[in-house]
Amino acid sequence: MSLSVKTSARTEFVPLSGRIHCDAASLIEGSGLLHLYVPHTTAGICVNEGDDPEVMADMGRVLERLVPWNASYRHTEGNAAAHVKSILVGASVTVPVRGGRLELGRWQEIFLCEFDGPRSRTIRMRFLGE
Amino acid sequence: MSLSVKTSARTEFVPLSGRIHCDAASLIEGSGLLHLYVPHTTAGICVNEGDDPEVMADMGRVLERLVPWNASYRHTEGNAAAHVKSILVGASVTVPVRGGRLELGRWQEIFLCEFDGPRSRTIRMRFLGE
Amino acid sequence: MSLSVKTSARTEFVPLSGRIHCDAASLIEGSGLLHLYVPHTTAGICVNEGDDPEVMADMGRVLERLVPWNASYRHTEGNAAAHVKSILVGASVTVPVRGGRLELGRWQEIFLCEFDGPRSRTIRMRFLGE
Repeated sequence: MSLSVKTSARTEFVPLSGRIHCDAASLIEGSGLLHLYVPHTTAGICVNEGDDPEVMADMGRVLERLVPWNASYRHTEGNAAAHVKSILVGASVTVPVRGGRLELGRWQEIFLCEFDGPRSRTIRMRFLGE
Repeated sequence: MSLSVKTSARTEFVPLSGRIHCDAASLIEGSGLLHLYVPHTTAGICVNEGDDPEVMADMGRVLERLVPWNASYRHTEGNAAAHVKSILVGASVTVPVRGGRLELGRWQEIFLCEFDGPRSRTIRMRFLGE
Repeated sequence: MSLSVKTSARTEFVPLSGRIHCDAASLIEGSGLLHLYVPHTTAGICVNEGDDPEVMADMGRVLERLVPWNASYRHTEGNAAAHVKSILVGASVTVPVRGGRLELGRWQEIFLCEFDGPRSRTIRMRFLGE
C-alpha cells in the first residue's frame, strides 16, 4: 500500500499521520510496526514536532545553511543539495502501532521531507504485526 | 514495554544496552529485530562507540557547532536547536537480536541522545521475532 | 546472513544491491522487510542515487566540510570525524522486498558508507516476512 503526495515548493514538510489513519486503516490493524519508505533520492521522511510548523521550517533553514542549494557540487543536475539533505534525514522511518493507531508521542508528527519540489511523491507502507 | 531514563544535562548521551538486557530480557527472547522508539521531539537515539565516552562528547560538540543553541530560529520555545539535532540523529533504531542478546558490534552501544535536558524520557520497545 | 566488503579509501561509498540479490537471494524470498545493519562505529549505511556516482561523492565532500577530519576532537584515536559522520548517516536501513526483490526506487541504491577506510566491513542482514 502507498500514499501519494503532491508538493508545492522546493522545500516542504508534509504531515502524513492523518492520511495514514484514513487511507491505511485496514493495513495497520492490531499491533506491530509500520515501515514508511520513500523511493526517491531528493526527498526524505522523519518524525518530529507537528504542533508548531516553525519547528520544521527552522529545520529547513538549518539544512539550507549547512547544505546550500547554490554551492560547488559535481552532480550536474543542479539538485545535489537535495540528495545530501535526503541522506541526512533518511529514506524511511519505522513507527510503533497499537490497537490500529500510530503510537506517536504527544507532539510527534510524521513528515515527508521534500527537498527538490514541487513534485509528485510516493510513500510505500509495510506493516509487520507482532 | 518501555524504558524510563532521567537525564541530568542539556546534552547527554545515555547508554541503554545494559538496561535492555536487564529489564527487557523477557521481551527479546530468541532471534529477530528490536525496535527502539523515542516518542519525544527534542531527543533522539543512535548506535555508536560505547568504549570511549569522548566519542559521543565529540558528537555533541560537533552538533552544537552545526546547530547552535543560540541562533536565529522562529520556534519560540527556545529549543529549536534540540528539535533539529533530534531529526539529524533520528527517533528510532532497529537492532538485530540473536539468542536473546543484542547483536551489537564489538565497540557499539545504543545511546538515548538528550538535546533539551534535564528531562524524564521514555524509550518504547517492540520485538519482532524471525 | 552477512556481506563482507573491503574498502580501499578513507571515504568510500560501496553499492550493495547487486551483492544482496546475488548472495542473499535465498534470504529475501517472498515479501517483507530486509534490515541491513553495520556493526561498526566508523561506517554507516544509506539509500540514495546510484546512477551518477558524483551524488555520493558530493555527499562525502559536504560531510568533510561539516565534520573535518582534522579539527579539534577529544577522542584520541584520530578518527573522531568518522564516528560523527557515521551517526549522521546511521547504522542501519530497512528496505521493502516484494517477490524476492528489493523494492528500491528507480534511482535508488544502497551504499555502505566507509568513513575510516581502508578496512574490512560486514553488513548483517535480517529478513522479516509479511
